[in-house]
Amino acid sequence: MDLPLHLLLPLLLVTAKLLGVAGRKVGVPAVVGEIFAGLLLGPSLIGALPSEATGGDAFHVFGEFAQIGLCILLFRIGLETDLGEFLRVWRPATSVAIAGMIFPFVLGWGVATLLGWSVMVAVFVGATLTATSIGVTASVLDEIKGQRSAEGRIMLGAAVLDDVLGLLVLSAMMGMVTPGAGVANTVGKALVQALLFMGFGIFFGPLIVRGFMAITRWSGKAALLLVLSFSYMLLMAAVAHAIGLAMIIGAYAAGLAFGGYEEHEELNRDLRPLIDLLTPLFFILIGASMELHGLNPLTAAGRWAWVVFATLTIAAIVGKMLSPAFLKAGNVNRLAIGSGMMPRGEVGFVFAQMGLSVSLYSPAQYSMLTLVLVATTILGPLLLRRVWNCPRAHPSLPFSFRPDPGTKVST
Amino acid sequence: MDLPLHLLLPLLLVTAKLLGVAGRKVGVPAVVGEIFAGLLLGPSLIGALPSEATGGDAFHVFGEFAQIGLCILLFRIGLETDLGEFLRVWRPATSVAIAGMIFPFVLGWGVATLLGWSVMVAVFVGATLTATSIGVTASVLDEIKGQRSAEGRIMLGAAVLDDVLGLLVLSAMMGMVTPGAGVANTVGKALVQALLFMGFGIFFGPLIVRGFMAITRWSGKAALLLVLSFSYMLLMAAVAHAIGLAMIIGAYAAGLAFGGYEEHEELNRDLRPLIDLLTPLFFILIGASMELHGLNPLTAAGRWAWVVFATLTIAAIVGKMLSPAFLKAGNVNRLAIGSGMMPRGEVGFVFAQMGLSVSLYSPAQYSMLTLVLVATTILGPLLLRRVWNCPRAHPSLPFSFRPDPGTKVST
Repeated sequence: MDLPLHLLLPLLLVTAKLLGVAGRKVGVPAVVGEIFAGLLLGPSLIGALPSEATGGDAFHVFGEFAQIGLCILLFRIGLETDLGEFLRVWRPATSVAIAGMIFPFVLGWGVATLLGWSVMVAVFVGATLTATSIGVTASVLDEIKGQRSAEGRIMLGAAVLDDVLGLLVLSAMMGMVTPGAGVANTVGKALVQALLFMGFGIFFGPLIVRGFMAITRWSGKAALLLVLSFSYMLLMAAVAHAIGLAMIIGAYAAGLAFGGYEEHEELNRDLRPLIDLLTPLFFILIGASMELHGLNPLTAAGRWAWVVFATLTIAAIVGKMLSPAFLKAGNVNRLAIGSGMMPRGEVGFVFAQMGLSVSLYSPAQYSMLTLVLVATTILGPLLLRRVWNCPRAHPSLPFSFRPDPGTKVST
Repeated sequence: MDLPLHLLLPLLLVTAKLLGVAGRKVGVPAVVGEIFAGLLLGPSLIGALPSEATGGDAFHVFGEFAQIGLCILLFRIGLETDLGEFLRVWRPATSVAIAGMIFPFVLGWGVATLLGWSVMVAVFVGATLTATSIGVTASVLDEIKGQRSAEGRIMLGAAVLDDVLGLLVLSAMMGMVTPGAGVANTVGKALVQALLFMGFGIFFGPLIVRGFMAITRWSGKAALLLVLSFSYMLLMAAVAHAIGLAMIIGAYAAGLAFGGYEEHEELNRDLRPLIDLLTPLFFILIGASMELHGLNPLTAAGRWAWVVFATLTIAAIVGKMLSPAFLKAGNVNRLAIGSGMMPRGEVGFVFAQMGLSVSLYSPAQYSMLTLVLVATTILGPLLLRRVWNCPRAHPSLPFSFRPDPGTKVST
């Protein structure tokens, strides 16, 4: 089937929203229902949504809509983040980001080695499992109004750092794979670019935003602020993409610049319908990317695939659940942070695709890894909702029990 | 230049909105400023926005965004239209629609004949000048809050009828040009389809909307109504397109079904940011489609082109200004209706392209006609804003002077 966009969009949107709502009714985050809608309508099952390879123009437009939708979600979350509060959690965020790279890397490497894969493949598997994608978690945080909690801010901060670290690992891998490019050189360049970018967003962004406010007041047309903000967000996303960061990190950095201004309330309300319509498309695409054909339990190969899938997924889950291991601050919900950091996304896919393109991964290994990545993306939010109201202190640590997840974290 | 979408969108949006705001400051409708932004950045001048022929993926996505944006605008105007009030103006609307087809056709034919063009070309020129595109007028009505005035409702009703009539003329032309297809046959089929479609939208639409309300209440998630409505709008637009009507007529018919419900206020507010971001793209594309190369006044050919352009534009203007000529109701602003019906758009372009594709029009004649169409699209809103507060009665008719344009029309 190759449906035109004007039929494809309604079909996907309505299915996703209805499954999302049905999910909510049984206590599952809406985003999981939306991912299932993608799986259901995607190439593996019904096939209404074509795969990236076979999809034509409609698929391309659809992908752009989805990407912009996710950017708006992260922009809005940046908007709701107080920049000062965001910067205050840099210590726990760094701790979570670093632990959340080391453990999945080591576990992924170990499991791949146990599965009998070569050293270089095992290193790539480790790298593939490191990168957190904050999109799904952001959607759940938005749903449970958790983005301003200590856990929410730590997760968002860690996700930004994780993306920068992931970029560095990716640059290192590129340096290793590309003949002639020095590793230190590529990594150093990527690091400087990423730091300059985030520095610009955080320190000069607010000045730009002040200019937007002035122009909007001069025009007497409130809608101008939306257009200027949206354009700024797209530009920041494009720049982030150009230097190798995820677009959504750029959009988040753009949003951070608005936090201090009163007008952000109105902007916030204006972004809501855009998010309602566009963001589900991204989660649909995640679900649609699942390749289930290799997992037939009636064949020996299919059963082995299940073993590989299960062990890699456990490695991916345990690795990120350990990400708050080095956290000093005690009064935070470690389970929530671990689950929130669990979903892998774009960056993991970039690693997997790089592994495939240099013929390190076999096609079977590649589709297995994408399945593992999607599995973490479904399990993360399921777990996050379940553990959100758990006691915040680690039981063995002498901190008080605080059931309210909105308190500030001490840093 | 072939800018990626994430750079192209900000550039176009910000330029268009700033020119729109600047236009407003000097008393010109925002839409005219936005069209000029398209002309400025389009292939004729700066060239940031590629033409349809050379534009790649970014242009395609851009076009889809623009189309959906215009649909949302018409949907929202349908939403604000009371279906009963809309149906009550059918008599003056029919009168305006029919006169607005006859006069431009005859004048276009006459001028083309005077210019020395062949009979068949002259017929096609007449047909090209008949079709009203309500998009631009709708935007101005939205700006001056005129969509509920008698004039606004007559124009909207006449535009719907005009689109149906245009479709019939187009079918007749197709029947004449395509060998073997009977004229009566194609016209009859088109008429039945158009009537079934509008009937469905007006009589069954409200039932569907009631279903949407029930599902939304059951879900407890207000955002679901937006998703369902947006999807319904896209489907209606797709069906309209499939049977040969303009997509925006389908979107308007979808909106009409919501008029009677209380929830439409909230929906209305949710659509506003979508319109703010997407609708300017459509007007940008209109401006970008202007081909100015042939109008160099330093060459004899260029001077003759100016003569052709001026006479055809005058025919196009006078033709539509005469559209309220047969109106019985006296207390309406005929100048406003004439100016509101003036902008030609998609349907005119369809005619022109058909004339080109069957080699009736030379490329020079084709680009001349598109220029005339765009000129009416700029002059219409300029005039509409200027005459909106004029006395409503025709000076020579014995009706009272009513400066308030919000009164109901007697039918």
